[in-house]
Amino acid sequence: MWRDLGAIGRDKDSGGYRRLAWTPADADCRAWFRAQAETRGLAYEVDRNGNQWAWLGDPAAGDAVVTGSHLDSVPDGGAFDGPLGVVSSFAALDELRARGVRPSRPLAIVNFGDEEGARFGLACVGSRLTAGQLGLDKAHALRDAEGISLAQAMERAGYDPEAIGPDPERLARIGAFVELHVEQGRALADTDDAVGIASAIWPHGRWRFDFHGEANHAGTTRIEDRRDPMLTYANTVLAARKKARLAGALATFGKVSVEPNGVNAIPSLVRGWLDSRAADQGTLDLVVAEIEKAAVERGERDGIDVRITRESFTPVIEFEHALRDELGRILGKDGGTAVPVLGTGAGHDAGILSGAVPTAMLFVRNPTGVSHSPAETASEDDCLAGVTALADVLEGLACR
Amino acid sequence: MWRDLGAIGRDKDSGGYRRLAWTPADADCRAWFRAQAETRGLAYEVDRNGNQWAWLGDPAAGDAVVTGSHLDSVPDGGAFDGPLGVVSSFAALDELRARGVRPSRPLAIVNFGDEEGARFGLACVGSRLTAGQLGLDKAHALRDAEGISLAQAMERAGYDPEAIGPDPERLARIGAFVELHVEQGRALADTDDAVGIASAIWPHGRWRFDFHGEANHAGTTRIEDRRDPMLTYANTVLAARKKARLAGALATFGKVSVEPNGVNAIPSLVRGWLDSRAADQGTLDLVVAEIEKAAVERGERDGIDVRITRESFTPVIEFEHALRDELGRILGKDGGTAVPVLGTGAGHDAGILSGAVPTAMLFVRNPTGVSHSPAETASEDDCLAGVTALADVLEGLACR
Repeated sequence: MWRDLGAIGRDKDSGGYRRLAWTPADADCRAWFRAQAETRGLAYEVDRNGNQWAWLGDPAAGDAVVTGSHLDSVPDGGAFDGPLGVVSSFAALDELRARGVRPSRPLAIVNFGDEEGARFGLACVGSRLTAGQLGLDKAHALRDAEGISLAQAMERAGYDPEAIGPDPERLARIGAFVELHVEQGRALADTDDAVGIASAIWPHGRWRFDFHGEANHAGTTRIEDRRDPMLTYANTVLAARKKARLAGALATFGKVSVEPNGVNAIPSLVRGWLDSRAADQGTLDLVVAEIEKAAVERGERDGIDVRITRESFTPVIEFEHALRDELGRILGKDGGTAVPVLGTGAGHDAGILSGAVPTAMLFVRNPTGVSHSPAETASEDDCLAGVTALADVLEGLACR
Repeated sequence: MWRDLGAIGRDKDSGGYRRLAWTPADADCRAWFRAQAETRGLAYEVDRNGNQWAWLGDPAAGDAVVTGSHLDSVPDGGAFDGPLGVVSSFAALDELRARGVRPSRPLAIVNFGDEEGARFGLACVGSRLTAGQLGLDKAHALRDAEGISLAQAMERAGYDPEAIGPDPERLARIGAFVELHVEQGRALADTDDAVGIASAIWPHGRWRFDFHGEANHAGTTRIEDRRDPMLTYANTVLAARKKARLAGALATFGKVSVEPNGVNAIPSLVRGWLDSRAADQGTLDLVVAEIEKAAVERGERDGIDVRITRESFTPVIEFEHALRDELGRILGKDGGTAVPVLGTGAGHDAGILSGAVPTAMLFVRNPTGVSHSPAETASEDDCLAGVTALADVLEGLACR
């Protein structure tokens, strides 16, 4: 499976993948999914939002156990983010058949469309539409960098953009959704475990910090006469790291814009974006409040007006405890050693669906932790351990 | 004079001036200069590089005393940077005539073309060409943001671009050049002096700092696994301010670029430009070395590869001591109080000419120190004090 899929949408120079939603590379991935389904005699269908499904058993029977992930990528993404979950799903189904297992519940494998949001700027479009978390007005307003709308892109790819919308009947048929994903950090890297279970998706948000100073000549303005917002920004970057480290949270300034951005000009405005995440809401609130305080205090010292705007926020998503505990029991090792349970800072289709159906995630060890990069990796042994774990989970859930 | 000139090239919204070289606004300023010369019965001429001259006495007699400055501006510049020197020159000549003074040396007023370099990216083009400090190949390669060459722009403005080049005969006729300019800092602001004398143009340079880290997911990469170049950059910005302040020098990071510059991405590269200046070479070398050391040391801590490139450098320009001392004697106040002598971080036509002829500068007090901005200002009393000082200097030099 990897050999056929691995060639699709790969950039020859970087070795990274460019499988943006509704592009020819995405269409090739979708054709691969359909072929995998049909080779195995699974019932193939595409839902109203362009998500692909492969069914073993009667979809209408209800209480289905669904697994899968996504096949699209960020620009220059790695091979595993998304595809590992889909490939492992087909491999786990093969494993169940090899074991001679006869599921008492319907099983399905899904490929959610446009998970990364790399083309239209919004992540998890396929699952959001299905779960009714993305209004049609907003969906129709989405445009890519070239001005092509989501509707135009879907139409060109052979899908009907008029059909998109909430799909509660489909969700009602699902009894459990389990998504396997390569870990996007190193929580498992230094353990003996190849596979972990997700506890929650951390609450996270984006804040824009506007540091307003006074433009002036860098060659003639005395130090004591300056109101240089670059200093306040720099101090805030360092404060963010320190506050996050002390609290066990994450805080990153990865984007900045400067006016007028001239070598010999003290800036009038430095604008920096903070991305912050933590395991719980209280910690996140505390960390962000401390960073804001540090910015304002330093701003007073530098003569800088600091304005802070929260641009987006997603509260914590706790995966269903009963399902998580069941996965823990199924995967529990001999001697009762528990499988690691870990939180994650990244969003997933499983997070979107968690509001509507019982949902869980499995993470496969990533030795470097690198993600959204051609350097993203997972060992073959760990990937096989992921398939075995997923097969165990599907068997445990579907044959109970 | 101010009333006629003040309306030219002024932006109605910002109140700033847009008098870029060889534009219609520049042509209007040039027409104003010619009219001022002709109204006073001065001999008007344009040299091969498009600089305007107005002569009292015989240019060919030699040992001329020349004053003047420039009329072009940066985009959204102030009313005084350049024009104050030209207007004050005509006013000082009127003052000499009112005093009944008869100069024994030729006097001239000059308007140097394209001093700001705002259109073609190189400052002091008119004086550089005249002094032979700008080769014809390089001059012909200059293009503005719309791709128009300097030659095309001069031709459209009615000048002959084939004629440009060094003008040693013209320089040989000049015995002294004195440029009056609004101060671009606040060295005089807190003193009782409206006028100061320039000692030197500080040595200055630009250094590009490339901080190479590792791109990663801001939501999933643990603090301890990051190689985030934004931290090293931020620390270097603060170190630059500190080292400069302790040494009495200037250091500014006013321009930055980030890759990939995404809110949820740890940057792979942060590139920052340092502008640094000091009163002497030794201090500048020391400050820049300390900033480089701070960057490299923090880079080692953050896992960041720091590469530093000097992009440009201009050594110190000391104005001629004999002429400076003579100005000091002429302007010395009753009771022997000395006129302030101050260095400047900004470049000027006087700096270009200083290699070829004895050159001096007078600065008129700027209460806010603001420069290259519509907020640039000087009081009427201080401007009049500048005219009187310039008239005193011209009388002292030309009638000795």
